[in-house]
Amino acid sequence: MGVLRLSHAEIRVPDLELAHAYYAEVVGLIETARTDDRVYLKAWDEHQHHSIILLAAPTYGLESLGFKVEFESDLDELAGRLADRGIEPTRFAAGDLGPGSGATCRFTAPSGHVVDLVHGMEQVGNGLPVHNPPPAPEGLTGIAPPRIDHIFLMCEDVDGVTAFFREVLDFRLTEQIMADDGHQLVTFLERTHTPHDVAFFTGPDGGFHHVAFWVDEWNDLRHGADTCAYHGVNIEAGPTRHGATRGCGLYFFDPAGNRNELYTGGYWFDPDDEPTTWTEAEMGRAIFSYQGKVDPHYMTVHT
Amino acid sequence: MGVLRLSHAEIRVPDLELAHAYYAEVVGLIETARTDDRVYLKAWDEHQHHSIILLAAPTYGLESLGFKVEFESDLDELAGRLADRGIEPTRFAAGDLGPGSGATCRFTAPSGHVVDLVHGMEQVGNGLPVHNPPPAPEGLTGIAPPRIDHIFLMCEDVDGVTAFFREVLDFRLTEQIMADDGHQLVTFLERTHTPHDVAFFTGPDGGFHHVAFWVDEWNDLRHGADTCAYHGVNIEAGPTRHGATRGCGLYFFDPAGNRNELYTGGYWFDPDDEPTTWTEAEMGRAIFSYQGKVDPHYMTVHT
Amino acid sequence: MGVLRLSHAEIRVPDLELAHAYYAEVVGLIETARTDDRVYLKAWDEHQHHSIILLAAPTYGLESLGFKVEFESDLDELAGRLADRGIEPTRFAAGDLGPGSGATCRFTAPSGHVVDLVHGMEQVGNGLPVHNPPPAPEGLTGIAPPRIDHIFLMCEDVDGVTAFFREVLDFRLTEQIMADDGHQLVTFLERTHTPHDVAFFTGPDGGFHHVAFWVDEWNDLRHGADTCAYHGVNIEAGPTRHGATRGCGLYFFDPAGNRNELYTGGYWFDPDDEPTTWTEAEMGRAIFSYQGKVDPHYMTVHT
Amino acid sequence: MGVLRLSHAEIRVPDLELAHAYYAEVVGLIETARTDDRVYLKAWDEHQHHSIILLAAPTYGLESLGFKVEFESDLDELAGRLADRGIEPTRFAAGDLGPGSGATCRFTAPSGHVVDLVHGMEQVGNGLPVHNPPPAPEGLTGIAPPRIDHIFLMCEDVDGVTAFFREVLDFRLTEQIMADDGHQLVTFLERTHTPHDVAFFTGPDGGFHHVAFWVDEWNDLRHGADTCAYHGVNIEAGPTRHGATRGCGLYFFDPAGNRNELYTGGYWFDPDDEPTTWTEAEMGRAIFSYQGKVDPHYMTVHT
Repeated sequence: MGVLRLSHAEIRVPDLELAHAYYAEVVGLIETARTDDRVYLKAWDEHQHHSIILLAAPTYGLESLGFKVEFESDLDELAGRLADRGIEPTRFAAGDLGPGSGATCRFTAPSGHVVDLVHGMEQVGNGLPVHNPPPAPEGLTGIAPPRIDHIFLMCEDVDGVTAFFREVLDFRLTEQIMADDGHQLVTFLERTHTPHDVAFFTGPDGGFHHVAFWVDEWNDLRHGADTCAYHGVNIEAGPTRHGATRGCGLYFFDPAGNRNELYTGGYWFDPDDEPTTWTEAEMGRAIFSYQGKVDPHYMTVHT
Repeated sequence: MGVLRLSHAEIRVPDLELAHAYYAEVVGLIETARTDDRVYLKAWDEHQHHSIILLAAPTYGLESLGFKVEFESDLDELAGRLADRGIEPTRFAAGDLGPGSGATCRFTAPSGHVVDLVHGMEQVGNGLPVHNPPPAPEGLTGIAPPRIDHIFLMCEDVDGVTAFFREVLDFRLTEQIMADDGHQLVTFLERTHTPHDVAFFTGPDGGFHHVAFWVDEWNDLRHGADTCAYHGVNIEAGPTRHGATRGCGLYFFDPAGNRNELYTGGYWFDPDDEPTTWTEAEMGRAIFSYQGKVDPHYMTVHT
Repeated sequence: MGVLRLSHAEIRVPDLELAHAYYAEVVGLIETARTDDRVYLKAWDEHQHHSIILLAAPTYGLESLGFKVEFESDLDELAGRLADRGIEPTRFAAGDLGPGSGATCRFTAPSGHVVDLVHGMEQVGNGLPVHNPPPAPEGLTGIAPPRIDHIFLMCEDVDGVTAFFREVLDFRLTEQIMADDGHQLVTFLERTHTPHDVAFFTGPDGGFHHVAFWVDEWNDLRHGADTCAYHGVNIEAGPTRHGATRGCGLYFFDPAGNRNELYTGGYWFDPDDEPTTWTEAEMGRAIFSYQGKVDPHYMTVHT
Repeated sequence: MGVLRLSHAEIRVPDLELAHAYYAEVVGLIETARTDDRVYLKAWDEHQHHSIILLAAPTYGLESLGFKVEFESDLDELAGRLADRGIEPTRFAAGDLGPGSGATCRFTAPSGHVVDLVHGMEQVGNGLPVHNPPPAPEGLTGIAPPRIDHIFLMCEDVDGVTAFFREVLDFRLTEQIMADDGHQLVTFLERTHTPHDVAFFTGPDGGFHHVAFWVDEWNDLRHGADTCAYHGVNIEAGPTRHGATRGCGLYFFDPAGNRNELYTGGYWFDPDDEPTTWTEAEMGRAIFSYQGKVDPHYMTVHT
């Protein structure tokens, strides 16, 4: 079957304690493990061990990202396809890459990002009983999104990496913003029948634009913004509507300067649906439907 | 890959004109075709030809239901598995089963329901331009849910049909309500990583409990209920919370007496997540979280 | 100016500790004082000392209710009007009626209810700083409505008490449910330009139907219902829409059996707006818009 | 009793047809009368003849504003108070000031604004039957707010006009933004027990910052923004939270450049509640809670 969904993001932060406090108390993630230089966190409704790894590092940015695959055999299948492209992945057994880690096929994508394909990450449960549960556990703190949703990556050759993700990893293109010269400026790719699990944004290779957490409703974006404002977190934009994906979002920054999003809405995408195309002239509206013009801060700030 | 999602439901109605008016003006579906005895309708954001077929018939109930498969080869693969079980499906080419229909593998499930596996139903688009679209078309009427979501079927042997759907069609069990004697009273099964695409409810074979349309938010349930009340539609329950699936819903009846639901919420379900089990004593809360006791009308009325 | 708004309700409860726990932890009111037989509570955004008084008593029901008046001189003016009707009120100085109490003019209404007109109840603040406050304090628990909203009282002669409240206390009639024989079955009266501060419901004199707390939005009703369900509180109806007042509500019971409501919505009412009239045949819809028929439990259960 | 609420705003527009189309089709107001140079409009749930008058004029800005008083005798009482201040108001009988107009006491406030105190404007109803009405009429178009809410005016001496509105018209101060030198930069004044019916903003005398329409919920702000975006209306800010008033709002501009707001939320304000004070350093957060810094466009653009 292949890639199921975005599994996790490993984020560099110069001040691990500060970042830990932010992701735990403001975002409301739950710590599941801690090593010398890493903190492992999950959103409350995720069953697997972690979706965010904070890595103590000299600067900000994205160390790696992971996609969950359905079957262990998918790792072999996809490793074979990578090899056919001349990319030799590294394989790790469960546990090799740290607490809770699953069997992993690691490679570097043409965009310069380290990508893990993972099967069998430790399951730790979502904090609810498996018999007669209430709809949510007591004692959630901060924004408390139920799960990770998607990730936006920067790279120089969006056309190239988009083709790579479609051909090698069977991602489907849902939307694209096209430059007047015919190149793809931004592409949206999915495996979950949602508008995007990963998106590529024209910029420097290896760059990190944002990681998004899912929330269920528009009201949750206000709660998120109120929570950010209460804690003095830097809000960049929103709550607002995106033209592309039709979803609604809120952008804000972790203490290291990495961008986070809360995202909701979107649509179901069938494999035989036609992708949506945005023209360069409408790029502003594709990103921020209400603002309707390109936001230079959003376009240029990344880590 | 196999079954993608619930594709459509074919519903019997004694008064086709009245049912057509209800599904078009109150529910807000869009007519895409009409024959002597059938009306074909789709929800506005669906790209494929139809998700509801109304069939003029002497009484109410479910004539058939369909699941969409990803690849045409899935039809062969699944037909083979059915044959292994001693079920000989009937195959139809695209168009054979009426306007817009795709290549189909039809069989009768152990629950007595006629099930179509479909590939390549005609794509008609969602009414939005594929370049620079707004988030929704103008001129939607009534409730206007974006898409079909799931279906609830009645049958005598829930354990049996649940095993069949898991083993033959690769559905995954997300939740179950267990009788004290160890039998499954209700099961929830998915292929979309949501809480359910189909559910089985103890009752007479071939019975139809409800078909549900997706809406994005809790506020949409109020809009749905206001719309029903405005048109004098019989509302059975809600807006309310389900214990099972954690989703929120509204139940009401079409003019023929077939039950509809508007549904929102739920969660992402990974294949390695553990199913949730409800005990018979908590069955009332599993269905209606706020009421907390079994609702005899909901339990006994079906078509 | 006269009556400003509903000030408070004094509610009888046989088990003061249990009721205290419910109103503090489930409803989320804040305790401001405690005597041998009473607990004084306020909603978080109220500035005055209390809006709910729990009174240890052999049975449930309403001991008294209070309206806040704008000026101390209103007490004299309204006492005079009462005397003109042959009702001799009792006057109390601030503090006479317990912790926080203001100058009070107490009388028994023709409906059999003890009514306090109050000026100058102690102001204790809403827990937010008066300089540069956030939108809400941290650490609210339970449902946490911001304030009391309205009260529903039972009495035999709704026409009589309605005329009394309009003529003596300058209440305005916003809506009424009329019996086919021309009597008022239910009346809705206001001083706040909302649909109701007090309503009278045909039944035994001195009866108490419910006290309602305000919430800002439909989403808050779901949060309220989830909170009730989590704590095993008996929910009677809702979240739902009322026909009368157009507002939305949720009904549930305190441990003593007194009915509470969470209410939101409604409209602004100008003094020269025409009242809305519901016919007896539409009484069910006037109360529960979605159900559309009279709910016997709601109609007959009171304290 | 005196001033009940904001009654209406008379807005200058150079292109009357264009402005009419905007207020009717995008904002969704209902036309009630038309003269050579004016269009009279009301929000759907208002019972009185108009709340917005569009005046064909060479430029944009506010021609006049009106407050509704409870009793006709209030006009005499308030005219007397104005005369005591050396302001000689002009009196008009019902109908003198155009279609639907009530008995009016007109004067120029110290801020340079023409203010009408009005009693007895023609009542035209809210489009719902007075017997057994549904919660809203069918066929509303555009944003369709139920009613006008408040108005923001510019003037040089905010301290002076605030004192005038409090002393002469019995307005109550709910919030204020104070300059470090002890002057009031912005003041919020009410007669409806809400956070504001009128506010004064430091700037040129006679200036017009915005008029706000009420909507019931945060979800309505998204609907408003989607509607603006669909019609190409210039959105300035929001949906967002205000620090002052705690309400949520959306700002956008009519075709002439006059600012409109959709507003929801806020709180009940008792006359004995203490006003909230914002320091100059927190002015940005007082206005836009999520942005947290002063928005130069919002501060300087007015008509």
